[in-house]
Amino acid sequence: MNQMVEAKADRMTEAMKTIAQLENQDPDKIKALVASGRVVIPKNKKRKTEKICGIGEGLRVKVNANIGTSPKSLDLKREISKAKVAAAAGADTLMDLSTGGDLTSIRRAILQETDLPLGTVPVYQAAIEAIRQRGSLVDMTKEEILNAIRLHAEDGVDFVTLHCGITQETITRLKRQGRLMDLVSRGGTFLVEWMVYHRRENPLYEAFDEILKIAKEYDLTLSLGDGLRPGALVDATDRPQVQELILLGELTKLAHKEGVQVIIEGPGHMPLDQIELNVLLEKRLCDGAPFYVLGPLVTDIAPGYDHITSAIGGALACWKGADFLCYVTPGEHLRLPTEEDIREGVISARIAAHAADIAKGIEGAKELDKVMARCRKNLDWEGMIEHSLDPIRVKTYRERGEEDVCSMCGEYCVIKMVNEYLKDAL
Amino acid sequence: MNQMVEAKADRMTEAMKTIAQLENQDPDKIKALVASGRVVIPKNKKRKTEKICGIGEGLRVKVNANIGTSPKSLDLKREISKAKVAAAAGADTLMDLSTGGDLTSIRRAILQETDLPLGTVPVYQAAIEAIRQRGSLVDMTKEEILNAIRLHAEDGVDFVTLHCGITQETITRLKRQGRLMDLVSRGGTFLVEWMVYHRRENPLYEAFDEILKIAKEYDLTLSLGDGLRPGALVDATDRPQVQELILLGELTKLAHKEGVQVIIEGPGHMPLDQIELNVLLEKRLCDGAPFYVLGPLVTDIAPGYDHITSAIGGALACWKGADFLCYVTPGEHLRLPTEEDIREGVISARIAAHAADIAKGIEGAKELDKVMARCRKNLDWEGMIEHSLDPIRVKTYRERGEEDVCSMCGEYCVIKMVNEYLKDAL
Repeated sequence: MNQMVEAKADRMTEAMKTIAQLENQDPDKIKALVASGRVVIPKNKKRKTEKICGIGEGLRVKVNANIGTSPKSLDLKREISKAKVAAAAGADTLMDLSTGGDLTSIRRAILQETDLPLGTVPVYQAAIEAIRQRGSLVDMTKEEILNAIRLHAEDGVDFVTLHCGITQETITRLKRQGRLMDLVSRGGTFLVEWMVYHRRENPLYEAFDEILKIAKEYDLTLSLGDGLRPGALVDATDRPQVQELILLGELTKLAHKEGVQVIIEGPGHMPLDQIELNVLLEKRLCDGAPFYVLGPLVTDIAPGYDHITSAIGGALACWKGADFLCYVTPGEHLRLPTEEDIREGVISARIAAHAADIAKGIEGAKELDKVMARCRKNLDWEGMIEHSLDPIRVKTYRERGEEDVCSMCGEYCVIKMVNEYLKDAL
Repeated sequence: MNQMVEAKADRMTEAMKTIAQLENQDPDKIKALVASGRVVIPKNKKRKTEKICGIGEGLRVKVNANIGTSPKSLDLKREISKAKVAAAAGADTLMDLSTGGDLTSIRRAILQETDLPLGTVPVYQAAIEAIRQRGSLVDMTKEEILNAIRLHAEDGVDFVTLHCGITQETITRLKRQGRLMDLVSRGGTFLVEWMVYHRRENPLYEAFDEILKIAKEYDLTLSLGDGLRPGALVDATDRPQVQELILLGELTKLAHKEGVQVIIEGPGHMPLDQIELNVLLEKRLCDGAPFYVLGPLVTDIAPGYDHITSAIGGALACWKGADFLCYVTPGEHLRLPTEEDIREGVISARIAAHAADIAKGIEGAKELDKVMARCRKNLDWEGMIEHSLDPIRVKTYRERGEEDVCSMCGEYCVIKMVNEYLKDAL
């Protein structure tokens, strides 16, 4: 049973009902949105977990946290612990981007240990195993890439990033553009290396029909990757980026026809004044498919604070219609995230997502702020802790918890003054 | 010699030339902007320091850092140290908001120790001294408030926050509105308490002519405070807030006529979708006077992360035309900021300011990002550290500084792959 196929046939699924309940919306509306491809429910048929989420138009913006090993850092226990930290901080989905150690065992362990929808990038595994076994990623075959996708689907992965839109055509556009940063997508770069070496088309583009077959079998959601994601402000919204988006739109149409759910991935590094345009363009070119953005990071000059540069861009993008926000940690560009980086990254992305939900008028969003404001008005510190996005941090910051005011104003606390002296006057 | 008076008389000052040089702009353009009140140069004639900045239309967004004691935390040495931390992190101006200890000695020590333009809130001193000497702030007299302003000006303070727009009329509007949070401005609340008790008009409104005389004597810049600043999203852009802004616009006109420089203070807590409207309204109602925003904080539910909630709102506000950004630290709503909070607050506000400068097309802004992107492309870690907003954090995060890649991707570093294998192909 595939969500989109059922929705198109006007049949209601349990998953649609669950999403409707979670979002406090009409189930028929959810069904219609899934049928049109404007909302996806990433859930592999093989996955046992009950925790699902809907991503797309009219729904609360969802936050993804990336975890995973690297060749320099391959402690499985640490990754499991990171998955738990991300979930506890409120991530809606996880992606395992492991590139170090036994990739299959790591993925299976993470699937075992988390009940959040899980995404992966199968081409990492195909490329890395080719490098390990034969010394070079150009020795990777199309069959190995398809096998990796099938293996991930069989394991229960709910959504996969596939860089199908990097083609010989986009590479030509890239050459003609003369970018400062060329490529910053890892999966995209693996594929370009392969394509340049073999002078052949991207296997993920050529074999899209076969990919759709696998996706249908497992109801695997395709997250069409942006291999041409700009890695610097100066490269944003350039011709190769838009070229790739056009191709992703064409592939989205093919997928939707087959009842395969699609998400479109987006930038990246981008000035504030190009963000709305990018969201509107994606929605138009890709038939309203959910937009999954990484940031955008609104400046290049703040390494160590990229959770903030991306919260700024992410809030604006999601307000204007992006649906799914990939967190960026403070350590982005510098190091693999620590557990504290992960917590901070998830909370920052949730702030951006929630600010957008309020501005978009998403059901129930602004009510959370009203509850917090009421706690503030009543100097109800327990309530403020309980209703804050990160209760742990509030507790830590509020060292002297016994007082009714905070150390900022002390006896000159405005709230206290108003409540005591101006209650009747105002 | 007053900047605005000179500019109106078409006379160029050294300060205007300095600002033109700092901003890489035509001095005549700066002179015209100062004459029209669209740009201010906060510099008290008594102040010896050479460091000045221009604030307003077409200029780089400036960042202010608040420091100051509270009744619970009154270590002068710590405040001096905070002033230095803020300056080192790149703050353009400082405000001393002290409410604990000997306010005059503290202010003078800060003026001595920093060369940044300094702002204060004189009504704090008048109110707190009335409380200390006579037990209640309602015993404060109009003369004492004016004396406090004169004393601060005589000490060399460059700009003062004055909540002149809270009047009996605005209080009536506030009552009719029925706000959730009523008042959250401390200076504003002091005045409302006084006005309600005495059933009299706001002395800062009544005595505005006398205030203008003091301002003219010292070329003291008036920062007209928003006593009705919303303290919760649900209260944003309501009738009392807009009423106060109308009054501030009228006072701005009077000040400009006398050649007194004016800044308008703005919100506050505010949903993303109301920010542009607030900036446009301020510019229209206040004859283009520079807009000085605190945030806006785009959600109420993230205490402990309000440097991020305000960076989101601040970036948008400044892109749409706000000129001056008051930092908010992670500890806002919870505690007096630590030195680390101050550093993080300043950097977060600088990120927002810079993102806005890029989007507005401010001279030289996007070039900084290009330099960083080039360092990234060359895996030039020394360059990345040097050109980042916070070199200290980049160094700290990059633990294993001897490697040419970061721990995130290790050997699968995209930049390295592209530079090694795709250099000729792309």
